Amino acid sequence: MGYDRPIRLGMVGGGNDAFIGGVHRIAARIDGRFNLVAGALSSTPEKAQASGAALGLDPARTYDDFKAMAIREARLKDGIEAVAIVTPNHVHYAAAREFLKRGIHVICDKPLTSTMADAKKLVKAAEDSDALFVLTHNYTGYPMMRQARQMVADGVLGNIRVVQVEYAQDWLTQHEEFKQAEWRTDPARSGAGGSTGDIGTHAFNLAAFVTGLELESLSADLQAFVSGRQLDDNAHVMLRYEGGARGMLWCSQVAPGNENGLRLRVYGDKGGIEWAQENPNQLWFTPYGEPKQLLTRGGKGAMDVAERVTRIPAGHPEGYLEGFATIYREAADAITAHRNGTAVSEDVLYPTIEDGLKGMQFVDACVRSSKRDGAWVKLG
Amino acid sequence: MGYDRPIRLGMVGGGNDAFIGGVHRIAARIDGRFNLVAGALSSTPEKAQASGAALGLDPARTYDDFKAMAIREARLKDGIEAVAIVTPNHVHYAAAREFLKRGIHVICDKPLTSTMADAKKLVKAAEDSDALFVLTHNYTGYPMMRQARQMVADGVLGNIRVVQVEYAQDWLTQHEEFKQAEWRTDPARSGAGGSTGDIGTHAFNLAAFVTGLELESLSADLQAFVSGRQLDDNAHVMLRYEGGARGMLWCSQVAPGNENGLRLRVYGDKGGIEWAQENPNQLWFTPYGEPKQLLTRGGKGAMDVAERVTRIPAGHPEGYLEGFATIYREAADAITAHRNGTAVSEDVLYPTIEDGLKGMQFVDACVRSSKRDGAWVKLG
Amino acid sequence: MGYDRPIRLGMVGGGNDAFIGGVHRIAARIDGRFNLVAGALSSTPEKAQASGAALGLDPARTYDDFKAMAIREARLKDGIEAVAIVTPNHVHYAAAREFLKRGIHVICDKPLTSTMADAKKLVKAAEDSDALFVLTHNYTGYPMMRQARQMVADGVLGNIRVVQVEYAQDWLTQHEEFKQAEWRTDPARSGAGGSTGDIGTHAFNLAAFVTGLELESLSADLQAFVSGRQLDDNAHVMLRYEGGARGMLWCSQVAPGNENGLRLRVYGDKGGIEWAQENPNQLWFTPYGEPKQLLTRGGKGAMDVAERVTRIPAGHPEGYLEGFATIYREAADAITAHRNGTAVSEDVLYPTIEDGLKGMQFVDACVRSSKRDGAWVKLG
Amino acid sequence: MGYDRPIRLGMVGGGNDAFIGGVHRIAARIDGRFNLVAGALSSTPEKAQASGAALGLDPARTYDDFKAMAIREARLKDGIEAVAIVTPNHVHYAAAREFLKRGIHVICDKPLTSTMADAKKLVKAAEDSDALFVLTHNYTGYPMMRQARQMVADGVLGNIRVVQVEYAQDWLTQHEEFKQAEWRTDPARSGAGGSTGDIGTHAFNLAAFVTGLELESLSADLQAFVSGRQLDDNAHVMLRYEGGARGMLWCSQVAPGNENGLRLRVYGDKGGIEWAQENPNQLWFTPYGEPKQLLTRGGKGAMDVAERVTRIPAGHPEGYLEGFATIYREAADAITAHRNGTAVSEDVLYPTIEDGLKGMQFVDACVRSSKRDGAWVKLG
Repeated sequence: MGYDRPIRLGMVGGGNDAFIGGVHRIAARIDGRFNLVAGALSSTPEKAQASGAALGLDPARTYDDFKAMAIREARLKDGIEAVAIVTPNHVHYAAAREFLKRGIHVICDKPLTSTMADAKKLVKAAEDSDALFVLTHNYTGYPMMRQARQMVADGVLGNIRVVQVEYAQDWLTQHEEFKQAEWRTDPARSGAGGSTGDIGTHAFNLAAFVTGLELESLSADLQAFVSGRQLDDNAHVMLRYEGGARGMLWCSQVAPGNENGLRLRVYGDKGGIEWAQENPNQLWFTPYGEPKQLLTRGGKGAMDVAERVTRIPAGHPEGYLEGFATIYREAADAITAHRNGTAVSEDVLYPTIEDGLKGMQFVDACVRSSKRDGAWVKLG
Repeated sequence: MGYDRPIRLGMVGGGNDAFIGGVHRIAARIDGRFNLVAGALSSTPEKAQASGAALGLDPARTYDDFKAMAIREARLKDGIEAVAIVTPNHVHYAAAREFLKRGIHVICDKPLTSTMADAKKLVKAAEDSDALFVLTHNYTGYPMMRQARQMVADGVLGNIRVVQVEYAQDWLTQHEEFKQAEWRTDPARSGAGGSTGDIGTHAFNLAAFVTGLELESLSADLQAFVSGRQLDDNAHVMLRYEGGARGMLWCSQVAPGNENGLRLRVYGDKGGIEWAQENPNQLWFTPYGEPKQLLTRGGKGAMDVAERVTRIPAGHPEGYLEGFATIYREAADAITAHRNGTAVSEDVLYPTIEDGLKGMQFVDACVRSSKRDGAWVKLG
Repeated sequence: MGYDRPIRLGMVGGGNDAFIGGVHRIAARIDGRFNLVAGALSSTPEKAQASGAALGLDPARTYDDFKAMAIREARLKDGIEAVAIVTPNHVHYAAAREFLKRGIHVICDKPLTSTMADAKKLVKAAEDSDALFVLTHNYTGYPMMRQARQMVADGVLGNIRVVQVEYAQDWLTQHEEFKQAEWRTDPARSGAGGSTGDIGTHAFNLAAFVTGLELESLSADLQAFVSGRQLDDNAHVMLRYEGGARGMLWCSQVAPGNENGLRLRVYGDKGGIEWAQENPNQLWFTPYGEPKQLLTRGGKGAMDVAERVTRIPAGHPEGYLEGFATIYREAADAITAHRNGTAVSEDVLYPTIEDGLKGMQFVDACVRSSKRDGAWVKLG
Repeated sequence: MGYDRPIRLGMVGGGNDAFIGGVHRIAARIDGRFNLVAGALSSTPEKAQASGAALGLDPARTYDDFKAMAIREARLKDGIEAVAIVTPNHVHYAAAREFLKRGIHVICDKPLTSTMADAKKLVKAAEDSDALFVLTHNYTGYPMMRQARQMVADGVLGNIRVVQVEYAQDWLTQHEEFKQAEWRTDPARSGAGGSTGDIGTHAFNLAAFVTGLELESLSADLQAFVSGRQLDDNAHVMLRYEGGARGMLWCSQVAPGNENGLRLRVYGDKGGIEWAQENPNQLWFTPYGEPKQLLTRGGKGAMDVAERVTRIPAGHPEGYLEGFATIYREAADAITAHRNGTAVSEDVLYPTIEDGLKGMQFVDACVRSSKRDGAWVKLG
């Protein structure tokens, strides 16, 4: 295996006390494929500088705003080749646009944007750019989700009939008190969806990733249980996929006892699978008429597509950060191929701007359906 | 504690190879409160006789049809005091009526009947009778479900917001081949609901039992995935309860790997509970802001209402038959009180004909909503 | 299947507040193969009478002492055919002898007796009697333990190398306060072993039942952690089986959080099994080099020997009482064959007096080894 | 929080296809506290060069042997400040010595060495050096193990009575076929212990880390089940701790179905804890007389000592690499303090050379005891 020089990475957002910025930085480091060399880490100048210093960034490459960063880095001989955008949702579009137009690859947190209008403009901006756009639906990086996808594609489950997907948390059960919650429950910064946007998009994306099914329509019942909350904190959604499969999606941020309960179950006429993110190294496989099998990451029964994104042996648990890092590693493979002018392997999988647009359409459809008392609506 | 003579019991249905008849007989025996002394065990005379003989019944009290049994037993000095009706659904009404009109208590399997019309007539018949009517929604007999109900009633979970209930099986994944499946997928014998009637009613009933909530309306999407099947084998239902709680109900008989997956989760603004029938001795309790607790039947934290229906210590698992037997024991308490002319304790809980009617209304509403493309419909 | 008249059963011990007496009564009732018709339920006459009345026994057959009961019942035309002995251990021998000598079958709780001397005399008494002797090592009644035994016998696991068995409880963690604890920690009534006798014998027996291996020698380290306690409440034992397999056995009654934690793991050169009593319907099967399989009672992969002792379908959990009832049902088969002068099927399995003697030898060896600082000692 | 320049790191061993070298490299990267700048990655020159190139190391700092590396790097102005030693065990001493004598900090894989003689010499070498010595008993880096240790220290479990620790794997069940197995079953390279050295030392260390107890003596029964194997592949050990606690330790590499089954249970007179490495984010806490609690990394009930080594929120699983990285981060804190001439915080915890020596003594004692038929022997 040859060696490719690490990719020079910048970051927008992710200042000192932001959760997801730290996650992106660790994910970028795990496989040694990126070097963080520049940042516009906060829209508050003092905080931007302090955050850059804490990370050991060159002060000359610690910027107060993302546009200045895009302009200058694009001119530097050793400027950044890629940027991670980890701001609140409403900033995604404006930030991504500046980098895309200058040929800098974008790795962007989900959901894609805060409005459908922004989403469409961002799709256009990405189409007009030679740069890559990677959306961090990180749960698709888990080895057992890669395996599940392949099992479905190989027909191991037969024709898919039923999809049960849920994503339950409890951190918004009562009145929010801290920064994380603040922007996520503010329509201006978060967008039209609350739990649907923040976690429902993950659930929707993961179900699509694994099953390969396109959603035909959905019927949604959204709630904001906490008094005064403007965005949904719980959502019940019925799904109809093209080809006849049906599903249910539940997302909630008011379900006490659920820390990060993303769970996927898929059933076909030949078998089923069950997976839960909180113990991601296991995948139940239930072939119809045979005993249940517990497949493990790196263990017996693990397929090539899972092994490809597995770092350490079975029984040595990989977690959230490794799954996230796999998205970064896939992005690195694609960016490196782009740099080298070579084709990227078909094995490389990462969520694209199209996935991001579908996620936005999912949120939009949930909101529209719920307003129409659960009428079945199509995406887009 | 004094001793009350066991109740003389008859049985309608439950011939040699029927599953649920054997379950009722064991349930009736476990606490020694019933003696099975008569039966009309099959509508086929030879099978009725053979089945009676295999159970050691007096041939003189082994009947070929339930009406003859009702007539004669009502006249015997030591005739049956109660009858268990364990036939296919479409026979429930006609059989129950004969016993109710003669003052013989009825213990009837669910769902109540095969048609709404029969259900209403049976409610009338029960109202006109002095005899008791007990419906075997057996899952309400589990100690941890008694505890969950009490915890909700005591406000431990706060205001209930979200109910997630599901009942998944896999035995109808492919074309049915055996008798159990045969009548259950035949509208004439089973009724308008397939999985909704057979297991959805259990799920609906259990959620109501635990939460004490009344359903306001539902939106359903029913499927018959197996080609040629006339009744639903999978159903997705969204629920709106009076008072603002919302829920989802999934029932399926085509989900490979699910043996008898009845699972209930209830979330309020102060905490949640989670329970799964396949390991019924455990109840997760998740008070908001505190560590999760695993409550166990008979263990620390078990409440009086659970202990009352617990036979053996913690760690010595009780199962399905014990839960079922608890319904029989509750029935025995009520019947004995009726015999003695005394009041039955308020602690005694068993599903009634009203619960049965609600179950029928639930199935009816699911079918109506699904035909109207998921429109929200009210029960009844 | 023909019908055999239920066996007339008596009981010694098991008065009002005894745990294990109630268990035996339910176990005897579940399959309808026994009728309890006589009892010497307590050594205290008033309690014996009250307990008999509470069970609805004929006062004429409610005895104040077991010897009177044995003498009179043996003379009655419809006297008891079998007796369940559920007293504290030190009474087992004297009681069993009286019934065995009169040809009345004995179903006796474990351990066999309180002393080795009594055990040997009881073996002699059983040999001299035409009556059967059944020891209620009830855990051998669980379907998945039947299956595990058969899998080992069939060579599915290959040559057995390692046995890990443990039985952990917590009810004696602090100073005992109630009757159950009282006699169990008194050497005069319980015997030389505390936890080793009460639960270690179960663990030892179950390992032998499943593996078919004979113990060659053991090395034990016994402790009495609670101040003033005369008998072991925790024991660590290393095992050497004939043929080269090795094992470890841990039993404890001072391990907080363990309710009734009997757990067995067996590993051979081709595969392993894992089972835990608290969820007895599951058996892990781990063929070397293949994915783990979760076998379920009544489910796919269940073998005939398991199905034979299974009452209800997969996913409908059977528990402790059903496993116990299986020992009673096996006893009923054997007693009925004895009554009819026919041979009992080879499928019928129940623990015998030889198993009881081995259990006594196990306790004796543990005590001897521990006194000799863990020297390896042989049984017997 | 200020920023400290990353530590310049070298590596000895860890060439292309070595498992543990890759683990160390990721662990060193996760928190960005080290930069790998030099390596003697293999004792085969071609492989050393190829491995260095694959990692992007400067060819001038890719060495063919560790001594040359130690000599040159010590002279470089920007030479390595620390070295990770990840060779087979028999090389640990010679390699570590060269770096320690030149003031380069050592981060060494376990067990400490392959012989007791080497271990003692290495202790001397470390004492004579100003450099730090860190042993990667990585399991002590898991947040829930930090919490467990603190709970014991705080007396939450009361007086510790019983320790049950086990480490089961299955990869040596049959004849070894690949490199990993090769040196680990060769006494010349691995040392006197097989499974005891490779994984038993981890189990022993973790039990000591959590309980704070010193081992007084042990009694061991070691086996080599695979024909021709020279080192133990399964070991049963009874433990006596100072102060009266007792324990059992099982380690095995021939237990099919066990991937990396390190499991610890500790019981005191007030409560217990249970933890399993394969799902390390959970810790059962069982206060005596109260419901069981499931504590989670980052969740409610997590203590400061756990939060300190937690990177991401509850429900976002951290795994093996993060636990390993915590040892590296602790080492970085200590090395940075050393560089800055400041005191290291008391919160910083990492396994030391003394822990390594105890591990060697543990293996030695196991071998001695087993040869003497399980006699109780003291460590050291």
